Amino acid sequence: MASVNGNNEGGGAAGARVTKFLQWLMALPSEFSAKVVDVMSQIKKVGKEDPRRVIHALKVALSITLVSAFYYVNPLYDGFGSSAMYAVFTVIVVSEFSVGATLGKGLNRGFATFLAGALGLGSYYLVHSISTEHIVEPILLGTLIYLITAGITYFRFLPQIKARYDYGLLVFNLTFCLVSVSSYRDHEVLDIALKRVISIISGGLISVSVSIFVCPIWAGGDLHNLESKNIEKLGNFLEGFGEEYFGRSEGGESNKLFIQGYKSVLTSKQVEETFANFARWEPCHGRFRFRHPWQQYLKIGNLSRQCAYRIDALNGFLNSAKTPLEMRGKIPDPCIKMSTEAGKALKELAMAIHKMIPPSAANPHIAKSKIAATNLRSIMKTGLWEDTNLFEVIPVLTVASLLLHVVSCTEKLAESIQELSTLAKFKNQDSEFVPKSPQQKETPQPCCHNSGPHHVVTIN
Amino acid sequence: MASVNGNNEGGGAAGARVTKFLQWLMALPSEFSAKVVDVMSQIKKVGKEDPRRVIHALKVALSITLVSAFYYVNPLYDGFGSSAMYAVFTVIVVSEFSVGATLGKGLNRGFATFLAGALGLGSYYLVHSISTEHIVEPILLGTLIYLITAGITYFRFLPQIKARYDYGLLVFNLTFCLVSVSSYRDHEVLDIALKRVISIISGGLISVSVSIFVCPIWAGGDLHNLESKNIEKLGNFLEGFGEEYFGRSEGGESNKLFIQGYKSVLTSKQVEETFANFARWEPCHGRFRFRHPWQQYLKIGNLSRQCAYRIDALNGFLNSAKTPLEMRGKIPDPCIKMSTEAGKALKELAMAIHKMIPPSAANPHIAKSKIAATNLRSIMKTGLWEDTNLFEVIPVLTVASLLLHVVSCTEKLAESIQELSTLAKFKNQDSEFVPKSPQQKETPQPCCHNSGPHHVVTIN
Repeated sequence: MASVNGNNEGGGAAGARVTKFLQWLMALPSEFSAKVVDVMSQIKKVGKEDPRRVIHALKVALSITLVSAFYYVNPLYDGFGSSAMYAVFTVIVVSEFSVGATLGKGLNRGFATFLAGALGLGSYYLVHSISTEHIVEPILLGTLIYLITAGITYFRFLPQIKARYDYGLLVFNLTFCLVSVSSYRDHEVLDIALKRVISIISGGLISVSVSIFVCPIWAGGDLHNLESKNIEKLGNFLEGFGEEYFGRSEGGESNKLFIQGYKSVLTSKQVEETFANFARWEPCHGRFRFRHPWQQYLKIGNLSRQCAYRIDALNGFLNSAKTPLEMRGKIPDPCIKMSTEAGKALKELAMAIHKMIPPSAANPHIAKSKIAATNLRSIMKTGLWEDTNLFEVIPVLTVASLLLHVVSCTEKLAESIQELSTLAKFKNQDSEFVPKSPQQKETPQPCCHNSGPHHVVTIN
Repeated sequence: MASVNGNNEGGGAAGARVTKFLQWLMALPSEFSAKVVDVMSQIKKVGKEDPRRVIHALKVALSITLVSAFYYVNPLYDGFGSSAMYAVFTVIVVSEFSVGATLGKGLNRGFATFLAGALGLGSYYLVHSISTEHIVEPILLGTLIYLITAGITYFRFLPQIKARYDYGLLVFNLTFCLVSVSSYRDHEVLDIALKRVISIISGGLISVSVSIFVCPIWAGGDLHNLESKNIEKLGNFLEGFGEEYFGRSEGGESNKLFIQGYKSVLTSKQVEETFANFARWEPCHGRFRFRHPWQQYLKIGNLSRQCAYRIDALNGFLNSAKTPLEMRGKIPDPCIKMSTEAGKALKELAMAIHKMIPPSAANPHIAKSKIAATNLRSIMKTGLWEDTNLFEVIPVLTVASLLLHVVSCTEKLAESIQELSTLAKFKNQDSEFVPKSPQQKETPQPCCHNSGPHHVVTIN
């Protein structure tokens, strides 16, 4: 009986396993199709986020198709032979998203190949002139390669080098090793090296030309827009914060989501630095000169982040609704004014960067937010608070205090953008059309055209 | 006279120019030597910051020397011929600083080469079977290459793909284009492709082996140490802040500098993500299993940064010394206590991560900081403040309020580290030696062994 039972149980277990397997098998197609739908929606999303990605993909494909001519066209192939491979290779490796990145990689690759090729040939002839013995030559070559590789690899850790010439040093290392190692076997080195250098330069030229002349994507423009958008996001938060915190907002959840956009500013440092590194390779384009002050954007970025850190602290108070509304109502007017005006100032600054005009339109808002700050201080100096429970108003006071810091940050940001405006010679768009005359002073913001650095309100 | 004068002046100007040129020429050697000294000191600094950089350089050089054997040793060269180049190539490109990065690149390269090679051959035979005409074949091949390149380039924008398989897709693109394009000219494709795949795999193996077996540098370990150090830096700030702000510190400027270390935490996101991506490729090593919960480190990192943003807001108050010391003295005790205990808790948490033990030693400090927070609240509820100018104490209150936020952040961080401890099965180091017995409860921190998530104090 026991064994029969056992068999039955075993059979049951096996049956259950088979059923499970069948269920899994049945679910497979639907799971697979769900996965496919997921990937497809992601692919769509990536394109929607930045349609230039589609253009980039088509551009790279175009470069490859062009460079394939090295193989398809007889006279070209007769000239280059299998060295044409290096042209294909270069195009794929060098074609980056932005012009700056492509140009940086292309120039790095070109110069590094040339230098390393020359040095590799030199070391081959040097070693060959010392000894042609089959034991001594590889030892000498090997030692030389060991030393140079170790040196170059270590050199790549230097921060300034890493930022601009990392790829160049990698290619230098590569080419030097290939040329000097293969020279041991292949004695027509000079001819081969020449063909390779020419095909690499051709590949690089194709890649850079397509990058520049077919719907160019400029890293400099991206950096410019990123700074402008980041400052706008901070402005959005501040414009919404006052009303939201003091309970006068009617936007509900959608408004809350909208003002959370500032979070991406907190971690934008790396992206900014990458853009700035690429932008430095770019020639003059559109509204940007060759030596546009890209470094100033990094300074502006740092100040925006300092402002964003304070805003994040403010946001911590927004999410907790513990303080009774009537308490919050004690000092709302100057606080809302400070927040809204600082927000407006930031948005004007963002607009000034975007349009490349002097940031004077922000000055009245900064002035108003400073007046609100003074009001706030005088309200606090009066004995308004004596009958309140101090513990309950602390969050409100903290918010007020942080807002004072934010106003100071906004001023510093305005100064820094003013500096950018001077360095990059931003021009008032009106001034190009209106002749210079005494009437010019009657433009919408006449009183605030002081372009010098503003005095920073010290708060605390 | 005029002309003589003119000549004299002209001669004078030329003379001045010559003098200037000579001065410049004289200064050249000293400027050059200053530059050399500067670069040398930077080279030294880079090595001092992380001596593993020197080891890495020597390791890469070793790999190259090993792979050169493909050229120097006759039987190897007879087998591979000029395909040996691909082995050298692979070693240089794949050898990255950490094992994870090398392994990730190596595996990406290996699989991508294999797949793209097979697909490239397939497309060659497909096109060849449709037509061998000299006009139709390149058009068909070109179209195929255009479509696949555009697709792959676009696919690289997907975030999940970009993080782990970006290099693989680049190599896939490269190999596919090379194989299918060169197949048009070279009809011994299969033989060539096989040799290349084998040399690429050999190069990859050499590179990965040297990376793993010669003084390995683990990205996982780096991520682990980074988190631990970042939390320690936050702890240092908080430990020092209370005394510094309330004017009881004796450290002076050196102490101020010391507590500024937290600033690097603000921008550590990118580095952490890179380390986590690399770490996922790494096999089990030292104290880390293969599937160590690296993602949890990113969560901890995010919480550390939230804490760091609050600390940066606190730091803004530290630098301004406008509030009179006697005002600051009103609530110093609980504030100093909160700050110091939160700091100690963070340092204990950092130590727990560092030693991979459960973070229970932090609990008493968290408890003390919470008691101090309660004290602070009750002090504030008393009418202690009625005779003070509210405006002047606002900064102190803001600092107190931010400190309450920081205590809450510390608690969340402790929870997250507790979760890491559970996921990664951290063990108390004592428990490995002491048998499980009732006496075990008399270990140094017996009362705080509650491993469940703590209740977070909601403040505001």
